[in-house]
Amino acid sequence: MDLLTICQKASDNRYFTAKLSTDVKNGLLLKAADLIVKEADYICSENAKDMERGKANGLPKGLLDRLFLDPARLEGIAEGMRQVAALPDPIGEVLGMQKRPNGLLIGQKKVPIGVIGVIYEARPNVTADVFALCFKTGNTVILRGGSDAANSNKAITTVIQKALAEEGLKTECISLIEDTSHEVVGRFMKMNQYVDLLIPRGGAGLIRNVVENATIPVIETGTGNCHIFVDESANYDMALDIIENAKTQRIGVCNAAESLVVHEKIAEDFLPLVYERLSAHQVELHTDETSTNILKDTIPATEEDFGKEYLDYKMSVKVVKDIDEAIAHINHYNTGHSEAIVTENYENANRFLDEIDAACVYVNASTRFTDGFEFGFGAEIGISTQKLHARGPMGLEALTSRKYIIYGNGQIRN
Amino acid sequence: MDLLTICQKASDNRYFTAKLSTDVKNGLLLKAADLIVKEADYICSENAKDMERGKANGLPKGLLDRLFLDPARLEGIAEGMRQVAALPDPIGEVLGMQKRPNGLLIGQKKVPIGVIGVIYEARPNVTADVFALCFKTGNTVILRGGSDAANSNKAITTVIQKALAEEGLKTECISLIEDTSHEVVGRFMKMNQYVDLLIPRGGAGLIRNVVENATIPVIETGTGNCHIFVDESANYDMALDIIENAKTQRIGVCNAAESLVVHEKIAEDFLPLVYERLSAHQVELHTDETSTNILKDTIPATEEDFGKEYLDYKMSVKVVKDIDEAIAHINHYNTGHSEAIVTENYENANRFLDEIDAACVYVNASTRFTDGFEFGFGAEIGISTQKLHARGPMGLEALTSRKYIIYGNGQIRN
Repeated sequence: MDLLTICQKASDNRYFTAKLSTDVKNGLLLKAADLIVKEADYICSENAKDMERGKANGLPKGLLDRLFLDPARLEGIAEGMRQVAALPDPIGEVLGMQKRPNGLLIGQKKVPIGVIGVIYEARPNVTADVFALCFKTGNTVILRGGSDAANSNKAITTVIQKALAEEGLKTECISLIEDTSHEVVGRFMKMNQYVDLLIPRGGAGLIRNVVENATIPVIETGTGNCHIFVDESANYDMALDIIENAKTQRIGVCNAAESLVVHEKIAEDFLPLVYERLSAHQVELHTDETSTNILKDTIPATEEDFGKEYLDYKMSVKVVKDIDEAIAHINHYNTGHSEAIVTENYENANRFLDEIDAACVYVNASTRFTDGFEFGFGAEIGISTQKLHARGPMGLEALTSRKYIIYGNGQIRN
Repeated sequence: MDLLTICQKASDNRYFTAKLSTDVKNGLLLKAADLIVKEADYICSENAKDMERGKANGLPKGLLDRLFLDPARLEGIAEGMRQVAALPDPIGEVLGMQKRPNGLLIGQKKVPIGVIGVIYEARPNVTADVFALCFKTGNTVILRGGSDAANSNKAITTVIQKALAEEGLKTECISLIEDTSHEVVGRFMKMNQYVDLLIPRGGAGLIRNVVENATIPVIETGTGNCHIFVDESANYDMALDIIENAKTQRIGVCNAAESLVVHEKIAEDFLPLVYERLSAHQVELHTDETSTNILKDTIPATEEDFGKEYLDYKMSVKVVKDIDEAIAHINHYNTGHSEAIVTENYENANRFLDEIDAACVYVNASTRFTDGFEFGFGAEIGISTQKLHARGPMGLEALTSRKYIIYGNGQIRN
């Protein structure tokens, strides 16, 4: 099917999906979960084609691992769908209903957004995850996955469409753009007439491409150059635990810490402790002049280091003279993701919470908590680093819009 | 000042504006209001230059009227600023703060968006209105007004900057792009590094240009092809009052009705009553086949009529066989603004509220109520017809973002 037809059919389907009851939506998700497990042989054999081509094309090990599917992984994907089925359905809730002086009763109703396009890379599990979240919120979804996972994405989409058909629902609730050429993705990003929202999921290059070229509204899910600021009054043990956790517990994720900022009054005492703690994980420190003088055995940081999302066992270090300089440094270099202060000072804690411009600002906790499950949403479609609509971890709520509903009894305007 | 410098200075100023207390912000708004009245001679003499050039260039009367300023209109602008000062400040409110099982206390704090760009046409009052709303919510604003109002916009901006200076605040809280060339506005729309949000205010052409060319997130304020559906069970008197009000009370506004949809079972009785009521206002009806046969003396509608925002004494008429066809017709042709049903049928009222896809959906009331003041917001920066972030009338709330603030006591992630 060509791109225009896919988009038109999805748009025509929007009112069908939007009207489905919670029971029907949950029933379909459970059915699709079962079918993904039942059809494991088919999905895995299609996945094997992608794996074979990926190996032949010399894909890096990390990518091959993300691409790989086996029955255990499919059971995990199915379990994710069952969890989404178990979550409360946000659609239909009415907020803030109030009576106006003229008798009009005005409230805001949560409704589906409509048609959501998701552009992602070689992670076939995203196909099922994204469908589950969009379908639960009454949205129709158009997926465009990476070419490396083309057969796997096609197989999972086919199985979900089979579940839809078996439940007597329309298969257009999910569609996959099989043509993975750049030309087609470029046109897809401009289908404003049919698509309401684009969510890019993947690396910085993919996201930049979508932000720069889409005319459809985009929710930017993003890179994280997350900082830990250790204030003069910090509890050293707490600070070391938080730094170690935020830097090393999982290095390839956007909520991992990349930059350490330390108050100059404690730098001489504290930095050697950091060095010792992180050396156990072979973390390479890229240090500013002051911290290089203290630590000696580190790599002098360049300007570029302070803005970098390493996603690696590397961390930049900056010594500042006070909280003002810490806040200014972080607001200059951060990517609007997650930032933490470690302090025992009440005023500095509050200033950091107030003045740091990021999706999530922490006092005395690891930045690794920025996550839909850790925040209690029960699901996550990504972490938004932009300021409109949704900011921070996005659960089902982020996939809803609102409309005003107004009950009158003949009111006209004077 | 060149565009890049304006944007950089505004972006550098963002943290200054964001930190101002409510008292300081309100004080500035009152000061600026007084100064606008005090400097009426200066502003009016600058406005006279725009008026003179507008007349020489043959601007239509309606545009010249929107452009014109006199002391009474400036008093109105000042009063608007005082009203914004009197509104509650949304910034700093924390929503939904909850304790997680691990002891983290997580809430969402309302914060300024940052730097807001507003692109508008020849309405100098927008300069002051937009500044007041953006400043009240701690945002820095960059304005780009139409060339027809260049001197007036410059004069109002200068007076507001004078108020800022006299209060010891930074004049960068408001800046005006004086170069009104297309080239500059084109570059402005791609200044993602410095500007967080673009709001176009003006006609359909301006809005389309911004939506298609901006890479900065946009809130689309839009055109309204608003419908009134008169159901089989409607109270005729109520329906006639609502149609007359929505169509004729003010014709040039986006919440005016443009399309009438009537149930076929009442068409023969009801349409002549509509014809009579609207003839008193010289409204020209563009009718589908069935209604042309009933009314005789009308203009047959073309396909184009049903999608049109006339902003004139014109209305399209469509007869439908049931509420399903009414909903399908409206969802096909509407612009996502405001739609109304007139009915005494409980089920149809609820179906209309549920299934119509628009910012504001009414039962038994005029679409003309879609307005920030009528909704009780005390202010309005525009009416959003898109589905993300803000939908429907936008008050101060729409100019805020949220960030998660997290209070911990040493939590790390397992």
